[in-house]
Amino acid sequence: MNTPTPSSDVRIDGARVSRRLHELSEIGRDPRGGMSRFSFTPAHAQACLLVAGWLREAGLDPAIDSAGNLAGLGSGRGAAISAGSHLDTVPMGGIYDGALGVVGAVECAQALKDAGVLLRRPYVVLAFADEEGHSFGIGCLTSRAVVGELGDDQMRAIHDRDGRTLADRAASWDCPLPRRAPPSLAAYLELHIEQGPRLQTEGLDAAAATAIAGISRTTATFTGQANHAGTTPMAMRHDALWGAATLVLDVRRLALASAGAAVGTVGKVDVEPGATNVVPGTARVRVEVRSGEDARLARLRVDVESAAKAAARAFGLTVSIDPWDSLPPQPLDGAIRALVLAHAARRGLQAISMPSWAGHDAKILAPHVPAGMIFIPSRDGISHSPAEFSSPEHIAAGVQVLLDTVVAIDAASPAA
Amino acid sequence: MNTPTPSSDVRIDGARVSRRLHELSEIGRDPRGGMSRFSFTPAHAQACLLVAGWLREAGLDPAIDSAGNLAGLGSGRGAAISAGSHLDTVPMGGIYDGALGVVGAVECAQALKDAGVLLRRPYVVLAFADEEGHSFGIGCLTSRAVVGELGDDQMRAIHDRDGRTLADRAASWDCPLPRRAPPSLAAYLELHIEQGPRLQTEGLDAAAATAIAGISRTTATFTGQANHAGTTPMAMRHDALWGAATLVLDVRRLALASAGAAVGTVGKVDVEPGATNVVPGTARVRVEVRSGEDARLARLRVDVESAAKAAARAFGLTVSIDPWDSLPPQPLDGAIRALVLAHAARRGLQAISMPSWAGHDAKILAPHVPAGMIFIPSRDGISHSPAEFSSPEHIAAGVQVLLDTVVAIDAASPAA
Repeated sequence: MNTPTPSSDVRIDGARVSRRLHELSEIGRDPRGGMSRFSFTPAHAQACLLVAGWLREAGLDPAIDSAGNLAGLGSGRGAAISAGSHLDTVPMGGIYDGALGVVGAVECAQALKDAGVLLRRPYVVLAFADEEGHSFGIGCLTSRAVVGELGDDQMRAIHDRDGRTLADRAASWDCPLPRRAPPSLAAYLELHIEQGPRLQTEGLDAAAATAIAGISRTTATFTGQANHAGTTPMAMRHDALWGAATLVLDVRRLALASAGAAVGTVGKVDVEPGATNVVPGTARVRVEVRSGEDARLARLRVDVESAAKAAARAFGLTVSIDPWDSLPPQPLDGAIRALVLAHAARRGLQAISMPSWAGHDAKILAPHVPAGMIFIPSRDGISHSPAEFSSPEHIAAGVQVLLDTVVAIDAASPAA
Repeated sequence: MNTPTPSSDVRIDGARVSRRLHELSEIGRDPRGGMSRFSFTPAHAQACLLVAGWLREAGLDPAIDSAGNLAGLGSGRGAAISAGSHLDTVPMGGIYDGALGVVGAVECAQALKDAGVLLRRPYVVLAFADEEGHSFGIGCLTSRAVVGELGDDQMRAIHDRDGRTLADRAASWDCPLPRRAPPSLAAYLELHIEQGPRLQTEGLDAAAATAIAGISRTTATFTGQANHAGTTPMAMRHDALWGAATLVLDVRRLALASAGAAVGTVGKVDVEPGATNVVPGTARVRVEVRSGEDARLARLRVDVESAAKAAARAFGLTVSIDPWDSLPPQPLDGAIRALVLAHAARRGLQAISMPSWAGHDAKILAPHVPAGMIFIPSRDGISHSPAEFSSPEHIAAGVQVLLDTVVAIDAASPAA
């Protein structure tokens, strides 16, 4: 009989992770390219069955909750340490976004089992049904069920493009797995691709997330005077587009001044009447700013508004500022982040702290349980595309740090 | 028997002009507001009949040419001195644009007849059928027939939205007036509302046009890299809209630097993919510049292109420059302009020289015959709108200068 491996030495099998990622990527292929694996489809059920098989192999017990999330529960006492991500993709998406966190979490269980290591707390793999928001238009939708934020009333109110409710879709979904309520959680860990270029550009291996960045979205509508583009002298114009163009460059300047702590984007400009030979009378600018820091986000919102008003004044325009979407930053657990960084260092990886600039299920879980995220590099920062790629080496390193962190959390937290 | 009035003292009847303008404005009223009097419609025929009656009253002989233009020809020797404008309007247009030049030209003949003054040359009133381009999509269309630039082949090639050719529309048009080829012209004068705010703003009564401004239209397409608006650090972005916004402000700066000799407009910006949360990958900017001076227009075209390239360089973008419309400036006759200014001064009017920033039939006639334009103030610079307005005083003053100039040209030019 072998001596059991000390839990801090358990190694994941990187080749198995890569193999399974590609196996999973065969389900929900879009003939136009990439993955189109949407929640409550036959492809989603097939993906759950594949993962459920791996979960059983790793000694976990798979079941589906009322919102279609798959959970593979291990044995142990008290609230569970969870790891996972989502199984759905955007249309024509990549094979790593979401799937990596699920396959990585399965691998942690398999590696522990293979090494004969038992955790004190139950370990649970979570594979959420709908994170991308494709079917119901709401991002990070089904993970809300795991933390009690998605009641029956809401499930009957939320509907897809065809008018079918989330409750209906989940109930009539043909997925032959047992049903079970979500387990009680002590922690949540999500391994994910960065979806940005920073780690690759700076030659880094991984990052621990400080927070899910908050988002503030505003429409600034400049109003001037539509007029003849020939007969109206330059000095007498009230060209709404002059205000809009100034604001576009001001948003850039303000975000750059944050030195990496915020980003700002104007992704859409609408000009009216929009004819070559008419001075624009109205220009609508959609401004989005993001930051992991609440105070900075608030400051930036004020600065953007001031810049819009200054631009309007400069050109004799009026401007109305209409904030239409505001999500505060969601801080992630500092102790978990410290564990991620410490174990990354122990494994010889170059890792940093940074906010997550995109939304993730961790944002939903973090207000309820200590939550953390691990990012690995995305080639050229590309995601939501068939060109999405992360190297097998970075994947293996990320899964190893995920396992190390799970083990460390289990060791540090007395079972309830 | 009365002593004949010296020709330089003939006075027009401003009240009659205003009365007739309003009488004409009853034909082609749009129930939604303003005038929608389009070429080759029953309203157009009705307008021709009304004007033809006035022409006969003034001793002129009305007839229609093959392109639907109405000409009221007087007696005299040699090529005719012509004055006029167009009878068509834009959809929901005003009552002055075009009509003023026609009614004013009729008044000149009536005033001469009332005063018993005979010109040496024939005087002809021209009322063009289609200047606004509403029916066939081509501005200043039918005046081309008067100078031999609209042959039968072209008339059979140009068609309206319903596929009916200009030749067809003109031939089947029910307008019970005699048909006659256009007369040979010695000069053309057009009285028109300014359609801009300059005369009103500077407290002026009239302007003599130096030229019809040339127009250069270009599309600048900036291409960067569409990317995630959260995960792409500011310093790594290639945001196509940054280039576009910079060009918008550069076009403004370059046109302002001309100190009134040019105007520049960006009337349309298209951003792709055009989502709030995606860094713009492509931004298309429609740039229009106008000037009455050929060299300045050429210089401005080069400067806009340089500015676009500099903006692209600054943000790591590429830019393609696609000129798609270029009309050189059309100089108007200097001697006629001098006569207009001299007679305006004699009548106690404050008048200036300025280019026409909009297109007019005078542009078509000017390469063939000495041509001039007289502008009177437009309230608030508004035209192509039911709110279009010029005061009866400015109208009377403009028609008086028109008549004075007709008389002066006749006196100065020996009949052929």
